[in-house]
Amino acid sequence: MALIVQKFGGSSVANPERIKRVASRVAETAQGGNRVVVVVSAMGDTTDDLIGLAEQLTDSPSAREMDMLLTTGEQISVALLAMAVQTLGMQSVSLTGYMAGISTEAVHGKARITGIDPARIHRELDAGQVVIVAGFQGMSELGNITTLGRGGSDTTAVALAAAIGADLCEIYTDVDGVYTTDPRVVQAAKKLDRISYDEMLELANLGAGVLHPRAVEFAKQYNVALMVRSSFNKNIGTLVEEEAQMEQGMIVRGIAHDMNVVKVSLVGVQSRIGNLHKIFQALAEASVNVDIIVTSVVHEGVSDISFTIEHGDLNAAMPVLEALVPEFGGPVFEMEEDLAKVSIVGAGMISNPGVAAQMFGALSEAGIGIKMVSTSEIKVSCVVDKERAHEAVRVLHSTFGLDGAETAVVSGLNGNE
Amino acid sequence: MALIVQKFGGSSVANPERIKRVASRVAETAQGGNRVVVVVSAMGDTTDDLIGLAEQLTDSPSAREMDMLLTTGEQISVALLAMAVQTLGMQSVSLTGYMAGISTEAVHGKARITGIDPARIHRELDAGQVVIVAGFQGMSELGNITTLGRGGSDTTAVALAAAIGADLCEIYTDVDGVYTTDPRVVQAAKKLDRISYDEMLELANLGAGVLHPRAVEFAKQYNVALMVRSSFNKNIGTLVEEEAQMEQGMIVRGIAHDMNVVKVSLVGVQSRIGNLHKIFQALAEASVNVDIIVTSVVHEGVSDISFTIEHGDLNAAMPVLEALVPEFGGPVFEMEEDLAKVSIVGAGMISNPGVAAQMFGALSEAGIGIKMVSTSEIKVSCVVDKERAHEAVRVLHSTFGLDGAETAVVSGLNGNE
Repeated sequence: MALIVQKFGGSSVANPERIKRVASRVAETAQGGNRVVVVVSAMGDTTDDLIGLAEQLTDSPSAREMDMLLTTGEQISVALLAMAVQTLGMQSVSLTGYMAGISTEAVHGKARITGIDPARIHRELDAGQVVIVAGFQGMSELGNITTLGRGGSDTTAVALAAAIGADLCEIYTDVDGVYTTDPRVVQAAKKLDRISYDEMLELANLGAGVLHPRAVEFAKQYNVALMVRSSFNKNIGTLVEEEAQMEQGMIVRGIAHDMNVVKVSLVGVQSRIGNLHKIFQALAEASVNVDIIVTSVVHEGVSDISFTIEHGDLNAAMPVLEALVPEFGGPVFEMEEDLAKVSIVGAGMISNPGVAAQMFGALSEAGIGIKMVSTSEIKVSCVVDKERAHEAVRVLHSTFGLDGAETAVVSGLNGNE
Repeated sequence: MALIVQKFGGSSVANPERIKRVASRVAETAQGGNRVVVVVSAMGDTTDDLIGLAEQLTDSPSAREMDMLLTTGEQISVALLAMAVQTLGMQSVSLTGYMAGISTEAVHGKARITGIDPARIHRELDAGQVVIVAGFQGMSELGNITTLGRGGSDTTAVALAAAIGADLCEIYTDVDGVYTTDPRVVQAAKKLDRISYDEMLELANLGAGVLHPRAVEFAKQYNVALMVRSSFNKNIGTLVEEEAQMEQGMIVRGIAHDMNVVKVSLVGVQSRIGNLHKIFQALAEASVNVDIIVTSVVHEGVSDISFTIEHGDLNAAMPVLEALVPEFGGPVFEMEEDLAKVSIVGAGMISNPGVAAQMFGALSEAGIGIKMVSTSEIKVSCVVDKERAHEAVRVLHSTFGLDGAETAVVSGLNGNE
């Protein structure tokens, strides 16, 4: 008997028909002798509908009240799914985030989970219940309802899996698993059988979309076995685990892209010790995620600082930066929107120098300009014009042998259960 | 500076426009130097929409999951109203039932409030917040979200007013106050200036509709001054308080009717000590409200028992009664739906014998048959055919001088603020 956490996204529970289908899948797992905890997002359009209501009242709703508003979406889903599971003759009980014992930071809109008290879930499981938990939400120590922000339901699922000691955490999505790159961009993209946490983390961070990075971090930290699979069929998905069996010679495992990049440049910042710290501390306090940072060489006491942020953080970042301008000797602001980040990821890069150079070469050969570069041990990212991004992905997928490698990579993966 | 609780029903917050109007009213009260706690119901059709979703999944949803589902309605309302108040430049914070400290019985769909911890509300008020609380809901000691059932938002408002020591609890509704009878039935119906808790309790119990009896009970028990008034204008409403100034000679203060009555008869119950107790204990355990009870004289060891219940409790009552039949010597069931209860209410009745007789005479003169009778110190109720109920109300309104008394009763009441 295994303890399994299953997570279903908003499109999987978009209407009563789909909720029934999810209920069947859940019931099957439970009737197979497993204990099951299910994490669900809000039904399809619910969140947008609620945002629409708020927009009719104000242009700048408080984040706290938005959390109160939006968390009703998952509460509706869990109640309906519990009902649907009950009609299949099983006991089921729904829990909001706080009822499931999920504590978060006292931040609204993008809180992080600070702890989970699994007592209630264990009690319900012991009583034979299929437990349905609202994703995306928790409660702060101030007693306010919070949301975890984007990818929050994935994070909820993995964090719960860690907290209750689940044997497996299944993330159901609308694709069959993790692909070498976005199949909508590159037709030759293929599903991976296995992938390591670190590779998945880079891919998730880079906008691969199937799994939120925070969820992968949690999974890595607590060694939760993660399976990404389709809610529309029973194909085996992609297993994310500690030591993936790497195919020999597969230096680059996947190509990711992120179309949501804004480059901010502060030109002419006076070079003083602590200035960099001040800028990025202030941005962090405003919960702005900074990605790539590039600083120029100091010249006549001033330097230029460039960095990328998500487009969605632009409104939060601007007042912070404007407030800092006078202090830094009044640098000039520059902003470039319409950018994208294209990245190659693979654990094999660590021991293969020259991969980055190969990437730059392929892009320049295709006439695609590189605006910024960032590297880690297992990835290289380039910021390019948004309109060239898809082309860049195709070029790199081919350059690194992923088009040709499809048979090798996917061998044995397409079997049905 | 007064501490005021204001309660707005679902039609008052049915859409963003109306929410803005309620926000203005709330803000006006707060800007007048008062501390304000607002209790809100779910937006207009939200509850019906949610029930519709559940119905697509199951014919018999569990009451616990229905509570999880339906309480999202008020959570949406409070979040939106807090946003709307904030846009008027005031601080405002929304709270769910449990965040507002409301504890209830561990019953779903019609729980009673068992306690309120006002600490959070006081803290928010001290911080200068307009506090918006979700009506109709609380949390059981088992940590489950519960609903208070019909009239639950009124009850929430009055209970909160008692718990925080409010100076006044205003119940905003779609009528100007409490009337001598339903103005839709009797055109000559007039608004009452003041009414006592006991009279209001009888009227509320009898289906007068503007105020739920549990709310009035709370108000009486904790001596909460209650004002029923319109959310569409600023007319002074009806003040419900301990010692209403009774107009001399006004024996009957109001006529109520309830169109939702089912009469259940058990014919041929063996007369054994404890049988009555067993029946009504079993019904109480199933949370069925029994209203009028009539037992026949014992004849040859058997008697007949008749009682009325609300139509909505029929499904809960039937299995209970069927289970008891064998034990009681197999009595015959009889059920009569399509009934109504018409009642006259007035504190002056206590010292005026013959009021009941006058009521029976008026109804029989109009050719309206009386099926059951029930009396208390300040009311007399008759069960009649539903199709004759409105006629009965008109006859009694006239018989007891309420048509003619309008000027006396309403003098001084119609002034605007």
